[in-house]
Amino acid sequence: MTIVKRTLEFLDLRFPQQKRKLLTVLQLREMALRARALYDFNSENPGEISMKEHEIVTLYSEQDIEGWLEGTNSRGERGLLPASYVEFLSNDTVSSVNHNSRYSNIPAGGFDLGNQTQESYNTAPAYPALPQQQQHSGTPASDDDWDDDWDDHSSVADEPGVVGGVYRNYEGNRPSTYSISTSSIPRGAQQAKSSATVSRNLNRFSTFVKSGGEAFVLGEAAGFVKDGDKICVVMGQYGPEWQENPYPFACTIDDPTKQTKFKGMKSYISYKLTPTHTQNQVNRRYKHFDWLYDRLVEKFPVISVPHIPEKQATGRFEEDFISKRRRGLIWWMNHMTSHPVLARCDVFQHFLICSSTDEKAWKQGKRKAEKDEMVGANFFLTISTPAAPLDLQDVESRIDGFKAFTKKMDDSVIQVNATLNEFARKQIAGFKKEYQKVGQSFKCLSQAFEIDQQSYSVGLNQAIAYTAEAYDAIGDYFVEQPKQDVDPVMDLLALYQGHLANYPDIIHVQKGALTKVKESQKHVEEGKMEIQQADGIRERCNIISFATLAEIQHFHQTRVRDFKSQMQHYLQQQIAFFQKVTGKLEEALQKYDDA
Amino acid sequence: MTIVKRTLEFLDLRFPQQKRKLLTVLQLREMALRARALYDFNSENPGEISMKEHEIVTLYSEQDIEGWLEGTNSRGERGLLPASYVEFLSNDTVSSVNHNSRYSNIPAGGFDLGNQTQESYNTAPAYPALPQQQQHSGTPASDDDWDDDWDDHSSVADEPGVVGGVYRNYEGNRPSTYSISTSSIPRGAQQAKSSATVSRNLNRFSTFVKSGGEAFVLGEAAGFVKDGDKICVVMGQYGPEWQENPYPFACTIDDPTKQTKFKGMKSYISYKLTPTHTQNQVNRRYKHFDWLYDRLVEKFPVISVPHIPEKQATGRFEEDFISKRRRGLIWWMNHMTSHPVLARCDVFQHFLICSSTDEKAWKQGKRKAEKDEMVGANFFLTISTPAAPLDLQDVESRIDGFKAFTKKMDDSVIQVNATLNEFARKQIAGFKKEYQKVGQSFKCLSQAFEIDQQSYSVGLNQAIAYTAEAYDAIGDYFVEQPKQDVDPVMDLLALYQGHLANYPDIIHVQKGALTKVKESQKHVEEGKMEIQQADGIRERCNIISFATLAEIQHFHQTRVRDFKSQMQHYLQQQIAFFQKVTGKLEEALQKYDDA
Repeated sequence: MTIVKRTLEFLDLRFPQQKRKLLTVLQLREMALRARALYDFNSENPGEISMKEHEIVTLYSEQDIEGWLEGTNSRGERGLLPASYVEFLSNDTVSSVNHNSRYSNIPAGGFDLGNQTQESYNTAPAYPALPQQQQHSGTPASDDDWDDDWDDHSSVADEPGVVGGVYRNYEGNRPSTYSISTSSIPRGAQQAKSSATVSRNLNRFSTFVKSGGEAFVLGEAAGFVKDGDKICVVMGQYGPEWQENPYPFACTIDDPTKQTKFKGMKSYISYKLTPTHTQNQVNRRYKHFDWLYDRLVEKFPVISVPHIPEKQATGRFEEDFISKRRRGLIWWMNHMTSHPVLARCDVFQHFLICSSTDEKAWKQGKRKAEKDEMVGANFFLTISTPAAPLDLQDVESRIDGFKAFTKKMDDSVIQVNATLNEFARKQIAGFKKEYQKVGQSFKCLSQAFEIDQQSYSVGLNQAIAYTAEAYDAIGDYFVEQPKQDVDPVMDLLALYQGHLANYPDIIHVQKGALTKVKESQKHVEEGKMEIQQADGIRERCNIISFATLAEIQHFHQTRVRDFKSQMQHYLQQQIAFFQKVTGKLEEALQKYDDA
Repeated sequence: MTIVKRTLEFLDLRFPQQKRKLLTVLQLREMALRARALYDFNSENPGEISMKEHEIVTLYSEQDIEGWLEGTNSRGERGLLPASYVEFLSNDTVSSVNHNSRYSNIPAGGFDLGNQTQESYNTAPAYPALPQQQQHSGTPASDDDWDDDWDDHSSVADEPGVVGGVYRNYEGNRPSTYSISTSSIPRGAQQAKSSATVSRNLNRFSTFVKSGGEAFVLGEAAGFVKDGDKICVVMGQYGPEWQENPYPFACTIDDPTKQTKFKGMKSYISYKLTPTHTQNQVNRRYKHFDWLYDRLVEKFPVISVPHIPEKQATGRFEEDFISKRRRGLIWWMNHMTSHPVLARCDVFQHFLICSSTDEKAWKQGKRKAEKDEMVGANFFLTISTPAAPLDLQDVESRIDGFKAFTKKMDDSVIQVNATLNEFARKQIAGFKKEYQKVGQSFKCLSQAFEIDQQSYSVGLNQAIAYTAEAYDAIGDYFVEQPKQDVDPVMDLLALYQGHLANYPDIIHVQKGALTKVKESQKHVEEGKMEIQQADGIRERCNIISFATLAEIQHFHQTRVRDFKSQMQHYLQQQIAFFQKVTGKLEEALQKYDDA
């Protein structure tokens, strides 16, 4: 670059017009070789480089090689990038991107979500459900950018799309990662580790592969399982289930408070967490939850990790938003602590227990969690199942039944969500207006009557005036009500939309394992595989199946518990509302006694 | 016409084209000489002929003479008609009128009203208030057409318009009778009975003139007042008031039943009336109420006769209509029996007491009432006032105050009416829909949950299904509710809109009398009138003023009584509604106890 710089300096002095021409050529060239990442991409193989959504990368050629481009990311790392993950930039785009990035390293995705106003009960789900497996799994944020001002550190754009058509793509404008055709997969990935006789899944973006399910089933997972790491599936009344947590606990989340640092330059919200088993309060920020969530998703392939509340760029310190996020975190915590596996895992315990002032201890635990080897494929090694293996045909039909259930439940949750959103909106706008218009007309009547000042008229005039006020107050009750009843149901639905969005991946892993069993049987029949190897695959598929069924069982039990309590709460609040309205009307009625 | 007929027959045979030409000429001529009555017109002077609204009249010339046209009505009577009361007909109009009249002698106005669907809560007042004085006063229906199948015998089109801009014209497309300029008044009318020194009102359509107020003030009323006819105004706590009815009574209106006669060819609704003072049940039809109303309006110039419910052509036998009319008649009866003057008058007593089977007695009483001499101007002769005369300046300011009151009350009644109409409509449509959509979404959720047939899920599924039904039922409650609370208020408002529409005329009569007093004072000052004559005018104005103030006092007391009880009823019904909703939700909540 120094040669170019010198050339330009020279031209500047002698031939300004020529310089301008050269600059344009250079810019055009540079532009053509620049691209912006559309999604996060995490390098998973040697030769690949990672990039974040919106990151600008420099490319060596516009020509892709089997779907891959060579380039350099913003950290100067050189390597391969998937061509379908980037868009080439025009001059205008570059400047606009540069302009945005001037303010902070805010991911634009965060801004997009921020456009959604909090107060408006729109029909979009308050918490768009994001399937877990794709959400910035991979490279954890380094300790160095841990102090980033931005709570909503990572982007939410890398949502997966539809699996088997079951789930809607919440942001239809982004292509599903699942829709990438195998042709865009570089040869290297397809050839890597191809030691097993059973063929590998060609789609390296497949959850079955990414989760480590494939590696485990093929017997490639290896790690030392400590006693404390053992996770038991037992046979319960309704089939396989996770062994109960012998030391159940809960954790409260209170007092979200705005904290500042760097002399008020940066601020964030801190939540007070008090786990019942320690009774020690710790302070955590949203980004801590976010970090923990990433660890859990990475670690547990067939467990539905509850989604944390959506990220939001604007209005982060607004009361409504803070309250809504807190409610979301409470629900999240509730699902975490009541899950026999998630509740007990080290990284969650570290999160709950580690003193928020002992930074050294925190970083130590953080690094330990990020270096945890018992994640993905190795997680399955920690599972201990009952002795009698499952009938895999029976498992398959149960999984299919559950798939149908989640589909129907997802549809109905969407409907309830949309209906209650609309119901709340109507109460806040239309219902309020109607009651207040009635109040207004009574007020008008009482004002007309007040022209007649005869003594026998005064009591009536006052009573009608009070009735007018009562209807006005009832209008306000309608505005306040959704916070009491609709919002909690919406929070519940948001959480379950998250779970329902997780299950296609979970089912996908189990089905992937089952396919491997079928393939291995065929290979044995054809004499291409040793029976022992096939037995190993079947045994490991059995483990995955036990875990999957235990997780499904847990889902059902939690679902019944949660929906029962929320429906009760909803009805109690509705009853309280109508009683409040009745009370106000009774007050008004009494005014006529003396009229 | 026979010559024309023969000519046409001849032409038809020989010169068909010429016949067609001649026909057009004849039709054009005939058309130009035909007109349709826009309003009822009752002949009140020699030389005038009566016509009913929509009646086709033949005219001798299109040229009016000082606002009057010469013509022949449908009964063949020849004489003068007010030009502004008719519209000339084109060929199309004639045939359409003839076409309509083929079915029955239904007044088109009736059909117009009938277009208004009963179920829809539109913003138009359910009972358009019709000022009383103009409503087919004059020629009573003869006994011969008494058996007319048509309950809604007379038209409602002859409403007066705005007096002093206070009241809206309910049917804005019809010119007000008050807007007829004096130039359209025939010379004859202006010259008749011009014996008094104080000048007559030039507008013979003025209520002051029509009501007999002018004649009475000018000392022209004469009649023999029987003791039983005496009506007393006394000084009460709040000023002049009608002497209380020493024998108060009420009258119930029950069991509207469909009756038929002429072997089922004709049918009508009969109401059972039971006055408390006789305890004898009599059956009356709407047309009896209508006839009675006409007598009362004719008889009492400064008393606000409550309007009977609106006429309706279509759906006369529909349950909703019958129920609404009955409610209107009950309100009407309530106002009749609680009015010290109206309750006691002969024609009303005849209506309440005369056996419905004794046709002879009925006709006798009917004829007596129709020949009653103590109507209009003579009514004032029956009034006995306290000895001390009123301060007419004070009266004037009280009347002005009342005028302002009625204006404001009328505005607010219109607003309450429109608001409650809309409130009812919203409950029936929007509120119902919202609650039932919530029910529907819960139903959808319970159906999704039913796919999971595990035993611990069944109770919840049933509870959610019940909740869905509860919300559906609440939706229906919203539909049913307006009948309980909004409709009764609407009935009340309709009745008061009628009273408020009466008052401009009543005020007009009093103001007319006051003007005569002022004029006579001026005449005395100018030496044009004897002081005794002026004193007579003042005394008679005093009587009118006492009666007017007594009527206003009665209005206020009735208003306070009625609005108090209706507001109480409304609130009680609203409370009952919200309690019912609460009860339903509590039922649903209980279902979760066992879930």
